[in-house]
Amino acid sequence: MTQPHDHIVKSYDEEQQRLHNEILRMGEMSVAQLEAALDVVERRDDKAAERIIANDEAIDALEQEISHDVMRLSLRGPMASDLRVILAALRIASDIERIGDYAANVAKRSMALNLSPPIPHTLGLRALGALAVQQLRDVLAAYRVMDVEAAQRVRARDAELDAQYTGLFRELLTYMMEDARAITPCTHLLFMAKNLERIGDHATNIAENIWFRAHGESLTLPPREKRDDTNTVA
Amino acid sequence: MTQPHDHIVKSYDEEQQRLHNEILRMGEMSVAQLEAALDVVERRDDKAAERIIANDEAIDALEQEISHDVMRLSLRGPMASDLRVILAALRIASDIERIGDYAANVAKRSMALNLSPPIPHTLGLRALGALAVQQLRDVLAAYRVMDVEAAQRVRARDAELDAQYTGLFRELLTYMMEDARAITPCTHLLFMAKNLERIGDHATNIAENIWFRAHGESLTLPPREKRDDTNTVA
Repeated sequence: MTQPHDHIVKSYDEEQQRLHNEILRMGEMSVAQLEAALDVVERRDDKAAERIIANDEAIDALEQEISHDVMRLSLRGPMASDLRVILAALRIASDIERIGDYAANVAKRSMALNLSPPIPHTLGLRALGALAVQQLRDVLAAYRVMDVEAAQRVRARDAELDAQYTGLFRELLTYMMEDARAITPCTHLLFMAKNLERIGDHATNIAENIWFRAHGESLTLPPREKRDDTNTVA
Repeated sequence: MTQPHDHIVKSYDEEQQRLHNEILRMGEMSVAQLEAALDVVERRDDKAAERIIANDEAIDALEQEISHDVMRLSLRGPMASDLRVILAALRIASDIERIGDYAANVAKRSMALNLSPPIPHTLGLRALGALAVQQLRDVLAAYRVMDVEAAQRVRARDAELDAQYTGLFRELLTYMMEDARAITPCTHLLFMAKNLERIGDHATNIAENIWFRAHGESLTLPPREKRDDTNTVA
């Protein structure tokens, strides 16, 4: 980890660039973690799952570092427009940190799945995971170049992920009803699916903060569809 | 909502006091929402659940307001110690906002439960909910007077809530295995229980930020027990 005193003499612009790069690095780490987590579900590899869980600490540490950078930047008495950039950075870092948590949770639950014999019900999770990875990649690409339009497309596409999640939720319930032995593993799959749905929500939050950073008013955003419709499942 | 220009002429101390009060108000709203949500589960009252879901917007709006207050405070070029206060305020507001989300989710899921005949399996949820309410009340009381010791007690007690959650998780799985008709309602209860466990995590986060605000180093905190042990359920 970089020492807090390394950058005292750097220019304000350099500090901002450093903040931007740290967030991108954090984002890349979260994508790698998510992909690795989805992979261990297929491979039923507990050792790899443990590595993913351990790696999450590096993302958490980076968020702490970003918080400190933000404090250092604020100490320089920034202008209102810079504060928006800083506030957006803080929020986006927090969203990425939570995406990392959800990826680690998927890895954790995969270890629970490995306590039972393999089940064929992980296919839907793989498809949902691929969509979550895509959303995350796209919103980070939008953040890299601050493409507000691309970010808004990610935000709009979250409804697809939600619909796919709700479909998977219903599907897993039917497996559970057909075979009591599927109840425990499918419950773990339900929670893993929920983690992926939440990753989609955080990708959406990042998209909204790209908008906020550019326009300064999150309130003028068009309203979004509701997220998790599984509460209508009876 | 207060206009952003109301407080431009106020003193820095007044602004900080205002921020503190806003967070306390937000905290009280989240407790009220959580208690109301737990209540509608028992009463099977969809109308009341809808009101809770709608009320969540007020908590979200307050978090937005707090973010703006933080920006206004930062613009005054605060000292490093004040920035810690500000950063802690921002994080605590974000935790309370999410507690509000989880309370609203419990209300939403209660509507799903009402689509099936009443089941006797909500007792464990009530007990878990009571513990979550207590943790939230205690950490907010600690925040009000900045009692670092009391906050640490909340943090230590999170392990109890986790253990109770894991017990409830296992219990609900057995109901599902005994009676396929219980699968859907018990799945909703599982997610509601998870929401309550997460509320406990956020109460813990608030406790950690009370520490951070006082000591400035979250890293020196003693390590915590792992949270959700349901991933060992096979």
